Amino acid sequence: MRNLKLTIAYDGTDFRGWQIQKQGERTVQGEIKKHLELICRHPVKLVGSGRTDTGVHARGQTAHFHTSSPIPSGALQKALNNTLPCDIVVRRIQLVADSFHAQYSIKQKTYQYRVRNHPLRDPLSDRYALQVAGTLNVRLMRAAAKHFSGTHDFRAFQSASQSNKGKNSVRTITRLTIAKSSEWIIITISATGFLYKMARNITGALIMAGKRELAPAEILAILQGKNRTAAPKPAPARGLCLLTTHY
Amino acid sequence: MRNLKLTIAYDGTDFRGWQIQKQGERTVQGEIKKHLELICRHPVKLVGSGRTDTGVHARGQTAHFHTSSPIPSGALQKALNNTLPCDIVVRRIQLVADSFHAQYSIKQKTYQYRVRNHPLRDPLSDRYALQVAGTLNVRLMRAAAKHFSGTHDFRAFQSASQSNKGKNSVRTITRLTIAKSSEWIIITISATGFLYKMARNITGALIMAGKRELAPAEILAILQGKNRTAAPKPAPARGLCLLTTHY
Repeated sequence: MRNLKLTIAYDGTDFRGWQIQKQGERTVQGEIKKHLELICRHPVKLVGSGRTDTGVHARGQTAHFHTSSPIPSGALQKALNNTLPCDIVVRRIQLVADSFHAQYSIKQKTYQYRVRNHPLRDPLSDRYALQVAGTLNVRLMRAAAKHFSGTHDFRAFQSASQSNKGKNSVRTITRLTIAKSSEWIIITISATGFLYKMARNITGALIMAGKRELAPAEILAILQGKNRTAAPKPAPARGLCLLTTHY
Repeated sequence: MRNLKLTIAYDGTDFRGWQIQKQGERTVQGEIKKHLELICRHPVKLVGSGRTDTGVHARGQTAHFHTSSPIPSGALQKALNNTLPCDIVVRRIQLVADSFHAQYSIKQKTYQYRVRNHPLRDPLSDRYALQVAGTLNVRLMRAAAKHFSGTHDFRAFQSASQSNKGKNSVRTITRLTIAKSSEWIIITISATGFLYKMARNITGALIMAGKRELAPAEILAILQGKNRTAAPKPAPARGLCLLTTHY
């Protein structure tokens, strides 16, 4: 049995997220699994690095699966990309050690959130960005971002649905940058792990800081208070992209 | 009666082009006219700078219409953008002289064609670009482009459906540039006027030059031969965007 690692890009708009849901809902994992099974001719257990929500995009999602099929990885990639729908592409297939696990072996993930700070909608970027009409103060966004860097209990910035389960919610953000270029504000967050909706919840708070609706010190207080109900709403999914995974 | 000039952007993917077609087909002109009539409360004749085909995008399409409505142009723009579907936005509304005509007053138009020269599809740019797998030779594309610059009879590069109608097919390309940046090749064409499908037909020829399927001298011979049937197929619509119109 070979263990194969897939690097995957997708446009999340028309998917109900990464993870297989109940029958009939279109998911990225479901689509890839279906085509892998047709090509490999055996049941496939496809393990992703983690879920992405409905509408979230990816350039560097990772998954692994074990196969007894003799088909070379290059031919497998070609066959997959020829049959997968046009909103998914498998960018790479690599043979990895048996012990490699897409979720448990991960060292770091990077998400990017694209904000278009402009008074008008733009039909040619709406699909992959959040438009914010009022001017955002990038200096305040960066001041707020500093509070997130490093190791913290991110309980207040995980999904409300998870926040009472008592699991460990300590994570480390290794890098959080905010770049501005003309009307674009690009937020890039690297962490050793992300809680459910953490990237979108942090982005939501940074945007409120940019709008002067929350001071950086108030965001620090919410982080330290560890209370989800005190924290801002998540930023919409369509601006978010899983950029890279590091092993 | 005021004469108002609209500057319009749209994602052409889900439209049957700019121009109103028979009932039931979704067009950009049809959508804007419908909403203008609801807001202005009178029938509207909306004149565009020219058609764009099914699937072609725009950042700077222009149109004009006359109205007896007293609604200020800023309020009209706001009302329109609040009700138009998310794949159209009106970027600007200006009061212009009675004599202004979106089609007849035009001095120059600029189209841009985006080619992604990469072996793999990219789901996050497929909607707005043509992917070409084999390496394109940009030097040969530029050599071919030189033959198109200036004033020529572009009969061989207009749509086959138009080429026997005997209309004047002399046009002037004022600028044709090919820029390369990592995997992107961006073709920008400015002209005093474009024949039907001219931008896509020229792009199709430039891509064939880049693939070494047609030598620049052969493209010159096709242009001089004025025979559409000898010319390459048009490049697909989704890579093309009407960038600006000049008056």
